Amino acid sequence: MRIAVDAMGGDHAPAAIVDGAVAAARHLEVEIALVGSTPAVEGALAAHAGWRHLPVTVVEAPDVVGMSDSPAAALRRKPKASIRVAADLVARGEAAALFSAGHTGASVMAAYAAFGAIDGVDRPALATAIPTRTRPAILLDSGANVECRPHHLLQFAVMGSAYARLALGVERPRVGLLSIGEEETKGNELTREAHRLLKAAPLNFIGNVEGREIYSGVADVIVCDGFTGNVVLKTSEGLVEAVESLLGDELRGTFSSQVGYLLSRRAFRRFRKRVDYSEFGGALLLGVAGLAVVGHGRSSVKAVRNAIAMAQRFASSDFIRRVEQDIGGVGTLTS
Amino acid sequence: MRIAVDAMGGDHAPAAIVDGAVAAARHLEVEIALVGSTPAVEGALAAHAGWRHLPVTVVEAPDVVGMSDSPAAALRRKPKASIRVAADLVARGEAAALFSAGHTGASVMAAYAAFGAIDGVDRPALATAIPTRTRPAILLDSGANVECRPHHLLQFAVMGSAYARLALGVERPRVGLLSIGEEETKGNELTREAHRLLKAAPLNFIGNVEGREIYSGVADVIVCDGFTGNVVLKTSEGLVEAVESLLGDELRGTFSSQVGYLLSRRAFRRFRKRVDYSEFGGALLLGVAGLAVVGHGRSSVKAVRNAIAMAQRFASSDFIRRVEQDIGGVGTLTS
Repeated sequence: MRIAVDAMGGDHAPAAIVDGAVAAARHLEVEIALVGSTPAVEGALAAHAGWRHLPVTVVEAPDVVGMSDSPAAALRRKPKASIRVAADLVARGEAAALFSAGHTGASVMAAYAAFGAIDGVDRPALATAIPTRTRPAILLDSGANVECRPHHLLQFAVMGSAYARLALGVERPRVGLLSIGEEETKGNELTREAHRLLKAAPLNFIGNVEGREIYSGVADVIVCDGFTGNVVLKTSEGLVEAVESLLGDELRGTFSSQVGYLLSRRAFRRFRKRVDYSEFGGALLLGVAGLAVVGHGRSSVKAVRNAIAMAQRFASSDFIRRVEQDIGGVGTLTS
Repeated sequence: MRIAVDAMGGDHAPAAIVDGAVAAARHLEVEIALVGSTPAVEGALAAHAGWRHLPVTVVEAPDVVGMSDSPAAALRRKPKASIRVAADLVARGEAAALFSAGHTGASVMAAYAAFGAIDGVDRPALATAIPTRTRPAILLDSGANVECRPHHLLQFAVMGSAYARLALGVERPRVGLLSIGEEETKGNELTREAHRLLKAAPLNFIGNVEGREIYSGVADVIVCDGFTGNVVLKTSEGLVEAVESLLGDELRGTFSSQVGYLLSRRAFRRFRKRVDYSEFGGALLLGVAGLAVVGHGRSSVKAVRNAIAMAQRFASSDFIRRVEQDIGGVGTLTS
């Protein structure tokens, strides 16, 4: 199985991407197509002795969509952008899945353009695995659609449930609707109407969940519009950084010995890896007729490797067909 | 100066409310009107020897708006509900400010009905002080309005700036608009249009801020609709709880000695107080022509005392008139 990797996308590209891809090629049953400027990619590969013996190929793509580019315009202007070339490899059947840590909007658009939507899905959504006190949960949409209608949230719930069944091994994932207040009359227009649709759908819908419950583990799948989902994830990221900084001050005050302080810092760093989105791998783009994993811009080497493993896992499980079947089952409810 | 305290509102009412009010009466230059069922309030007061020598009076209000009541209906049905009687005391000039830790929606509605809106304000907003890596910042709306229009966010920014000037002592508070993406073209319809209005207003507007920056200290005032604001605050609350639980696991693993573990837990508990909204006092209701501080349902004794101190501080500073003046200055921009 071959995974197409956008070697040029991400804050630490191509080095971190190439390093992660090489680790995946070494340790997983996977071939890698590194898509990007050949000199840049080969330059990064040079750090890995013997890479030519690994199942790694370089696919030339001279252009890049930058982090500050307008994605629609950049994709139009740059047919040879690495994200477009990588998505096309998947669309042509030359790779089983796509990974990019580049501009999220551009990755979503390129995948949507290359793969098309699954029948019955109006909008693709980004699904992110988040840690909770118990097992991970799936939050979606984490940023693909800033404006959503109630039936989009229903489709997100169906796709998120398929994700949770496969990735978390939960038979009947508990679906929560992110809102403010638990009663179905609480929330805004979008959530009140979405609540009605979710209640009638063949899902294990547990009702509204408040922000406070996102990390408690009460729900396996949490649906919301992409504006709210993105704010939630980024707020969490910033809060963990602030906690680390403020807690450092407290710990410095508590421990008379330098040793205790260092031990606590080490514990915190390990903890942070459990909640750090840049460590996790990536968000899965749901609703398109092909597999795409979108990484955090700050993806580390380990995150890239994890994201490739995730892409491989979904690609070997006939995931797209499962989502098609599930979406087919609720199509009549929304039309 | 007299503060009207809704003695019956909150998860631990009347005990925690009465205890906090007594602490305020003992240590601050303030009189307290405890509004609620006289037997219940006097029962809680009985725990404080010599309370009759304190500047504390009990004002009878036999009814309560419960946490699960529909606030509009409950307020209509119960003219003698503690929150209504307390708000009426302020409206009649018999108290300078109101504090309640009861049903937030009911507190907002009761204050709005009793005080009316400030000229030029279309919607009241709840403003919450949040900790950042540097000094606190003001987030609003934290839940009074689930649906907002762009000019509401402009009014929130003006009122939030007045709050920050007084409470944080910042001459020109930096105002950020909570959105996804820093460019003004990013975000949803609401934030894109609000960005345009904020840019043209006589404010120190620094542009969009992302969720990740809320706790970084880049902005003194962060404006958003009440749905988003409420989700942000409750997500943060839940995340801090999850961090505490997960970090406990890590620390147990790190420290061989029980002593080190206990020291770390103590440090974490101290840290948590810095970020726990139930410790802070309360949210200030902005835009109504009277002072109201709304506490967290789980308000502790200390939080009640802090909230009363906050109400007193705003009441002695002619705050409402300052907001009226500031709102007057932008009125022509939005009409």
